Amino acid sequence: MLHSFSGLLTDLYELTMAAGYLETGMEAEATFELFVRHLPRKRNYIVVAGIEHALTYLEHVQFTPEEVDYLRRQPVFRHVSQRFFDWLLAFRFHGDVWAMPEGTVAFAGEPLLRVTAPIAEAQLVETYLLAAVHLETLVASKAARVVTAAAGRPVVEFGSRRAHGIEAGVRAARAAYLAGCAGTSNVWAGFRFGIPVFGTLAHSWVMAHPSESEAFRRFLQVFPEAATLLVDTYDARRAIERLIAEGEKPTGIRLDSGNLLRDSRWARHRLRQAGWEDVRIFASGDLDEYRIARLLAAGAEIDAFGVGTALATSSDAPALGAIYKLVEVRRGGRVRNAAKFSPAKATFPGRKQVYRFRDAAGQFREDLIALADEPAPAAEALLVEMFRAGRRMCPPEPLETARERCRQQLQALPARLRRIDRRAAYPVRHSPRLRKLFERLRRGLR
Amino acid sequence: MLHSFSGLLTDLYELTMAAGYLETGMEAEATFELFVRHLPRKRNYIVVAGIEHALTYLEHVQFTPEEVDYLRRQPVFRHVSQRFFDWLLAFRFHGDVWAMPEGTVAFAGEPLLRVTAPIAEAQLVETYLLAAVHLETLVASKAARVVTAAAGRPVVEFGSRRAHGIEAGVRAARAAYLAGCAGTSNVWAGFRFGIPVFGTLAHSWVMAHPSESEAFRRFLQVFPEAATLLVDTYDARRAIERLIAEGEKPTGIRLDSGNLLRDSRWARHRLRQAGWEDVRIFASGDLDEYRIARLLAAGAEIDAFGVGTALATSSDAPALGAIYKLVEVRRGGRVRNAAKFSPAKATFPGRKQVYRFRDAAGQFREDLIALADEPAPAAEALLVEMFRAGRRMCPPEPLETARERCRQQLQALPARLRRIDRRAAYPVRHSPRLRKLFERLRRGLR
Repeated sequence: MLHSFSGLLTDLYELTMAAGYLETGMEAEATFELFVRHLPRKRNYIVVAGIEHALTYLEHVQFTPEEVDYLRRQPVFRHVSQRFFDWLLAFRFHGDVWAMPEGTVAFAGEPLLRVTAPIAEAQLVETYLLAAVHLETLVASKAARVVTAAAGRPVVEFGSRRAHGIEAGVRAARAAYLAGCAGTSNVWAGFRFGIPVFGTLAHSWVMAHPSESEAFRRFLQVFPEAATLLVDTYDARRAIERLIAEGEKPTGIRLDSGNLLRDSRWARHRLRQAGWEDVRIFASGDLDEYRIARLLAAGAEIDAFGVGTALATSSDAPALGAIYKLVEVRRGGRVRNAAKFSPAKATFPGRKQVYRFRDAAGQFREDLIALADEPAPAAEALLVEMFRAGRRMCPPEPLETARERCRQQLQALPARLRRIDRRAAYPVRHSPRLRKLFERLRRGLR
Repeated sequence: MLHSFSGLLTDLYELTMAAGYLETGMEAEATFELFVRHLPRKRNYIVVAGIEHALTYLEHVQFTPEEVDYLRRQPVFRHVSQRFFDWLLAFRFHGDVWAMPEGTVAFAGEPLLRVTAPIAEAQLVETYLLAAVHLETLVASKAARVVTAAAGRPVVEFGSRRAHGIEAGVRAARAAYLAGCAGTSNVWAGFRFGIPVFGTLAHSWVMAHPSESEAFRRFLQVFPEAATLLVDTYDARRAIERLIAEGEKPTGIRLDSGNLLRDSRWARHRLRQAGWEDVRIFASGDLDEYRIARLLAAGAEIDAFGVGTALATSSDAPALGAIYKLVEVRRGGRVRNAAKFSPAKATFPGRKQVYRFRDAAGQFREDLIALADEPAPAAEALLVEMFRAGRRMCPPEPLETARERCRQQLQALPARLRRIDRRAAYPVRHSPRLRKLFERLRRGLR
């Protein structure tokens, strides 16, 4: 129903400004940078995601005649000339894009994506780029914490039903996998992105049968090799005792409620006694990184976790302060840098690059934000050219590549930053030239 | 990119259970009810939304051959017979649906939507129905609070960039309008749903011009009748003084940062002195119902509000405990009611209806949840027949009708429940027959 490449997937002011630029003959090339201004209190880093989704939109964005007619009928455009509507009908994105590859670990203030294009074009795509990068980065950043808390045990993303709509569920599944989850319950995400999918049965399967015993027996009959039985519909311990007594050995059992610590320890004990050491114990039910960490610290006997709502909605920080700011305007051969100076909302001017310095062991030491045309230091440049003049410079990257990048970067992140329970800051410096430019512009304003 | 009617937009366990029902010859008709188990701490009621979206999915859901092939390749389905894949290829939703019309004010535990269908069908659509109803109900419920706080002043939904992806932004725009917002910045939502769209210019417009003065002049030239000028890019007071000095009268001014209380009062004072009483003052920037209420209580001079992130993500309660529970199974003429009994997660059995009793003044007095086949009391039945045997029983309702319903219901809600700052409970009773059935089933289990 939603035409995902529509140019109307934007805020109205992007279109009024575009009309304004065209009507006043402002033929400038503008650079905007997308970044997260401040991290939420409970985040020490972000995991960049949603870039591929954003680029796909830029490749395909356009307006249908019907959509342009709709705009023509809006009172706000009453005095705007036909030229604007013709421009919309012919609209394609012709700009340059540099971005951090997905799976990059990044910090507040660092440009994650940089667009240089005719100003009206660069402006028009703001809303979609933010929406795409914000959601997936939000969920990937949360997922990295959940995966960290699980300390090597697989985490499956289960949040599609409580994500903010089914598309958010699909995107959350992808972001969670990218950041280290073992897979998802969302089948469309599996189909579309090749993510492993997991899931066996719900309480309703058990409730629909005359008895739990018959429900289990029938399920095992259809799925003899892949049955993780949900044992807590009525009484988890009685269900496990019955399985053992009846010799109906499942692949795993799932606890979705109750006292996961006590029940998992009891279950492991009984399963061992029965000689079922290989029956895996899977836990779910309102889990997040904090609860997982507490369960494991207390000695819970859990082999894998399903995490839903908290992961797919990033419930303890459901938004990042992601913004898309004008940093440069080129017009008739002249370059003007743009910045904001209010203390809470300062933004640095100029096209930028982010460099990452590592120590001898490969651990991240510090990042440097510098002007893109400064001599590059001997460090990794995080922003990579993705589009030149509206054409992709590299094919879409396999999701596994991004996932592996994320895994390696999280390993290289100093341990204090990986902790889920404590605030820690990572050093991000601005280059002297960048600081000088900022100060010069500020003084110029006064 | 997202095929919105794909049957794969579901959790894997819905498909394994469907395969299980088919393979074991479970030819039953099942009834599931969708409801919110508990309200978040800061919600006294919910506003039902997303029903129309859910029904549209039910009308169109199907599987492509490519999608079915994908499932066939999944190891979990290795032992499943061809019958299941043929069933998927022919899949259509043939069930009955009763639901509360959008805009209905509802409470925890009340079925918002009830599906009766062959069990595998009813199960398969669970994830999508939850995702659709959850998101829009979540945002509509938040929007009702924001609109209440604004006390008659228009509120415009501005959250597309921070909503959980652009589709969530479109859905949030619709839900917010339904619950009383005056409109949205999301143009696609305007195009698709006929919602009024708002927006004029961003800081980037000002920053792209050599001076703020020139930026304003050019914008007024293109939009002489519809220019709300954003005045806080550099210094809001200086910008307002300059507009007055230059005689460049806009339709309105927008404050997006700084001290909204002091600046709005100062701005009103200066605009009045200039004889510009009709220049409206619009405020935005990290607003929510709490901040709006505080601003107005303190005497802020604000005529309209733009609310973004907090509204589109329902940031103080980014999820509702929405669930979809099996309540009845009919098989070979026999009816079995299904319920859960664990104290924290009890669900009542049987197909239900919700009745609303009002006092003489039309205010809501209490709701009664009863079995659908009980004699109806003299009260409004909230669940309405939407689908019979897979066919819609009524055409889609105009969004304005749902919006007006919401407006009337919020007026009829006791004032203590409408308050944004205090928890208040509304009486929801269960009928004696329903309680008796629940107790009978519970005893039967022991």
